[in-house]
Amino acid sequence: MDLATIIGIVSGVALVVTTIVMGGSPKIFVHVPSMMVVFGGATAATLISFQLKEVLGVLNVVRKAFFSESTDNVALINRIVELSKKARKEGLLAIDKEVNQIEDAFLRSGMEMVVDGTEPELIRNIMETELSYLMERHKRGQDIFSALGEYAPAFGMIGTLIGLIGMLQNLNDPTQIGGGMAVALITTFYGALAANLVFNPIAGKLKNRSEEEVLVKEMIIEGVLSIQFGEHPNTIQRKLMNFLSPKQRVFEE
Amino acid sequence: MDLATIIGIVSGVALVVTTIVMGGSPKIFVHVPSMMVVFGGATAATLISFQLKEVLGVLNVVRKAFFSESTDNVALINRIVELSKKARKEGLLAIDKEVNQIEDAFLRSGMEMVVDGTEPELIRNIMETELSYLMERHKRGQDIFSALGEYAPAFGMIGTLIGLIGMLQNLNDPTQIGGGMAVALITTFYGALAANLVFNPIAGKLKNRSEEEVLVKEMIIEGVLSIQFGEHPNTIQRKLMNFLSPKQRVFEE
Amino acid sequence: MDLATIIGIVSGVALVVTTIVMGGSPKIFVHVPSMMVVFGGATAATLISFQLKEVLGVLNVVRKAFFSESTDNVALINRIVELSKKARKEGLLAIDKEVNQIEDAFLRSGMEMVVDGTEPELIRNIMETELSYLMERHKRGQDIFSALGEYAPAFGMIGTLIGLIGMLQNLNDPTQIGGGMAVALITTFYGALAANLVFNPIAGKLKNRSEEEVLVKEMIIEGVLSIQFGEHPNTIQRKLMNFLSPKQRVFEE
Amino acid sequence: MDLATIIGIVSGVALVVTTIVMGGSPKIFVHVPSMMVVFGGATAATLISFQLKEVLGVLNVVRKAFFSESTDNVALINRIVELSKKARKEGLLAIDKEVNQIEDAFLRSGMEMVVDGTEPELIRNIMETELSYLMERHKRGQDIFSALGEYAPAFGMIGTLIGLIGMLQNLNDPTQIGGGMAVALITTFYGALAANLVFNPIAGKLKNRSEEEVLVKEMIIEGVLSIQFGEHPNTIQRKLMNFLSPKQRVFEE
Amino acid sequence: MDLATIIGIVSGVALVVTTIVMGGSPKIFVHVPSMMVVFGGATAATLISFQLKEVLGVLNVVRKAFFSESTDNVALINRIVELSKKARKEGLLAIDKEVNQIEDAFLRSGMEMVVDGTEPELIRNIMETELSYLMERHKRGQDIFSALGEYAPAFGMIGTLIGLIGMLQNLNDPTQIGGGMAVALITTFYGALAANLVFNPIAGKLKNRSEEEVLVKEMIIEGVLSIQFGEHPNTIQRKLMNFLSPKQRVFEE
Repeated sequence: MDLATIIGIVSGVALVVTTIVMGGSPKIFVHVPSMMVVFGGATAATLISFQLKEVLGVLNVVRKAFFSESTDNVALINRIVELSKKARKEGLLAIDKEVNQIEDAFLRSGMEMVVDGTEPELIRNIMETELSYLMERHKRGQDIFSALGEYAPAFGMIGTLIGLIGMLQNLNDPTQIGGGMAVALITTFYGALAANLVFNPIAGKLKNRSEEEVLVKEMIIEGVLSIQFGEHPNTIQRKLMNFLSPKQRVFEE
Repeated sequence: MDLATIIGIVSGVALVVTTIVMGGSPKIFVHVPSMMVVFGGATAATLISFQLKEVLGVLNVVRKAFFSESTDNVALINRIVELSKKARKEGLLAIDKEVNQIEDAFLRSGMEMVVDGTEPELIRNIMETELSYLMERHKRGQDIFSALGEYAPAFGMIGTLIGLIGMLQNLNDPTQIGGGMAVALITTFYGALAANLVFNPIAGKLKNRSEEEVLVKEMIIEGVLSIQFGEHPNTIQRKLMNFLSPKQRVFEE
Repeated sequence: MDLATIIGIVSGVALVVTTIVMGGSPKIFVHVPSMMVVFGGATAATLISFQLKEVLGVLNVVRKAFFSESTDNVALINRIVELSKKARKEGLLAIDKEVNQIEDAFLRSGMEMVVDGTEPELIRNIMETELSYLMERHKRGQDIFSALGEYAPAFGMIGTLIGLIGMLQNLNDPTQIGGGMAVALITTFYGALAANLVFNPIAGKLKNRSEEEVLVKEMIIEGVLSIQFGEHPNTIQRKLMNFLSPKQRVFEE
Repeated sequence: MDLATIIGIVSGVALVVTTIVMGGSPKIFVHVPSMMVVFGGATAATLISFQLKEVLGVLNVVRKAFFSESTDNVALINRIVELSKKARKEGLLAIDKEVNQIEDAFLRSGMEMVVDGTEPELIRNIMETELSYLMERHKRGQDIFSALGEYAPAFGMIGTLIGLIGMLQNLNDPTQIGGGMAVALITTFYGALAANLVFNPIAGKLKNRSEEEVLVKEMIIEGVLSIQFGEHPNTIQRKLMNFLSPKQRVFEE
Repeated sequence: MDLATIIGIVSGVALVVTTIVMGGSPKIFVHVPSMMVVFGGATAATLISFQLKEVLGVLNVVRKAFFSESTDNVALINRIVELSKKARKEGLLAIDKEVNQIEDAFLRSGMEMVVDGTEPELIRNIMETELSYLMERHKRGQDIFSALGEYAPAFGMIGTLIGLIGMLQNLNDPTQIGGGMAVALITTFYGALAANLVFNPIAGKLKNRSEEEVLVKEMIIEGVLSIQFGEHPNTIQRKLMNFLSPKQRVFEE
């Protein structure tokens, strides 16, 4: 898990809890019915919009986004350059065995097609369809969390309205206003917290992670096709190096 | 109907009703004039923007989005691959009978044109126009529900303003403020609930369902044209498999 | 005028008026200075952004959007197909007289160019420029109403702020708060009502109407060029039929 | 200056001032520190985002947008058609003298390149780069006013928060609440007024004016290249007429 | 550092501080726990969305945006034109030494490829990938500050809700309301101030600076390829001059 994420979650929760405890009445902030109306309502609205399998599948997407390692781009480029050298020296058929040992599934499947003699146009077509499918899945994950991030504050407001209306309706004793308002506002608090410390940051994470993965996959497509075209390993390296940040490049060159 | 939708609707309504009942004064939340100003107002504003037949037609679109089954993509791909095998072996004219038995209307109409010897460019043109028309109809449906989802909270606020102004104007007895406010806030509550538990989730559903259907239709166009070009069934299968999620692919291969 | 629009306007106004009257103090809702600050202010801000002739011209655009009939697409397609039959049989020059009798100005001007022997590229260029000009005019109309729909609530809030500040400043007698607040809120009410029952729905209508007209015009361009290329009437009919909704197609075929 | 702008500014200011005066306590609305926090704050935030020369240059852009005359498109088209006639009859070199007398700088510089025998591709490239640069400058102007239009209400709210916090902190005498609130709200009022009567309308004006100018410049590019290609003056006229609204066309033809 | 930025920061801070001091109770505005919940919360939510190295790297991006000098475009164009003259006279190989002395890294690396005889297509590909990578990094920087600018007011509201709920809950003595509200509102104030005087202006600065840099880099790509194609220095100058504002051009020509 990325260090930033851990720091973010721990410090975010710690800050909010500390602020609540310092306020002197932490008990009121643990209110199960309020939690249910906010989280349940936001989940219900999201379930209406999406299919069950998508909503369940999203946990998988999140798990990957937070726990899977970033690809080591430099190692990947070196791998591709090696393959291109061998292919140039010994021919495309000779690298058959090498290809089976490639750990990156996307690169391996691309190289397998090269070895099989598939036409470049079809390889590009298949790899890009695969890539666009991946983007689509990521996009769906972001959409689900963005929906939760919009519905949570909305149901927070709905909960507060229910509380306010009930309280105002039965208002005999003005000294009760304070307590009633406090309870009514808890759902707004939950909604704001859920959206800004959970749902929206996760949606952001999925978006950023997706952009990274797409970049890597585009680099792999470029590399696979360059090998097939028999380009010079130096040219391939130069091309792919462009996908790295300048800092990484300096290190490796 | 998708399970998620049923869970969403039932649990969403249950949560809100429970919260209201727990608040102790559920009667105030059933207020017909408030309902009318919110739902009537939002519907009126939407009717001004769209044509009557579009607004009436939208119910049909919603019914399909929620009740029609998802297409079984794997079966569809198998069907297309079978057709391509037969066409390759026996010629395009030989599959005339098969074509008449295709259950998917879009695939059938495409294959009919192939059998009739229509030019590929025209087939693509006709099928894509059909597809873009479908997207247009879906888009209109989403637009209508998005409009309702924007106008409902707006008329909720308008209702609350009317209530507040009337109450404040006649404010002789300060003890009446509570009750007046409670009634005034009911329309805001209806507006928020209608938008977030009904209109916006439906708009979201239409958008997601539309994206799925478009994907299937694009796959069919790809398949029909591949058959016409006489591509090898294996190539066709490989191409179309890319439209499936990796999970589905593993199962079938 | 489209039935939906009439129903929308009548029911929307009726609902709001009924709600106000039921509140018991309808007189306060008729407040000329408040109307002036909201409508005058929104109009003033809009006039600064646009040219006078554009703002005046917008009324014309609105009139057309609400009162002109939808084009009968089926009749139009039949007309084009007839023309194509005659042109194929008797030559392009022979349909000169027919062309003069075409009622649709856009189709007629296109066919005139065909009869004159204008090059296809130029015909497409001229018709598409005309179309893009039409879209631009519609877009300007929508922009003006969207601007009004944004400025009206803003000036509603400005009016309320002026009222509130004045009232709070002179607050000697706390029992006056209610009345002062009531008056101050009137402008917010006008702003919300104007935006949500007038300006935004009209902007939406213009957008929807524009999309329809563009579709029809694109169909005409397609038809005119197909006639010039001498395509078979059946092919032309098939192509143009795609612009119809499936329901309309069934009826006609 | 466009009449609409003058009407807009005068009537907008008059309406707001009248409303304030009718409220009975106009003095409170002139509060220099509040003005400074709103206008100063919005300007400060904008200065951080842009370069000094851009912010200073924006006044120039505004001046042009409001005071420069709209181009007379009809006259311009006639000018281009005349040039094309002469060029056709006497050759491109013969119009050298005419070209020097063209008053529109953009048309003149384009025609100069034609006379110099510059290649069409380069002429288009240079004229379009010039056009895109103009759009960029206009865009920057709009961005600056949009930024001001966003920051002004934000600093209005910041000012009100400062006022509220100070007042609530020192709240010994409840009768002081009214006056304190009134003063605190002044900044919110300034922010709303500045955004909705000044900054946003100007940003809108720049956008609209830019679209017009771009249209004219595109027409000129089309005309210059048509002359170079030696197209028939009638064809050129027909092409350029498309850039006019139908009303203008009727008048001229 | 750009003068506008310094003026913006100094005047913005001065205005807010002056307003606070004039309010008479400046001490309440320095409240460390409130600062922590707003800045800490916004940072925490941002850390969850991005990677640690990105968030740390952003400071570098900001430093560059504010402190690095704008490129002197005129000097750069002159440099390119000189190179093109020499290359035309003495051949591409002869400018090897000149190329090593070019101070602009992007121009130098481009010219090195020219001297090495790299194919134009590859040069364009490599330079544009580099450029798109740069844009990506700038975009990420903007995204981080936009995220902070959205989360800061959100956590300001969360802090205020915590304060309000705590205060209302323990409301025995109505005279305490004022002070409690004042403290609760401090976080909203911090959130608004952080977003509008720090985070959003910086995001704007990064966007504007990025657009400038991209323009310069595009000009360099154009120049490098023109030199390789052996275009006439005058043509190159004319082309590149188009990237300057008219004012700069007048000066230089």
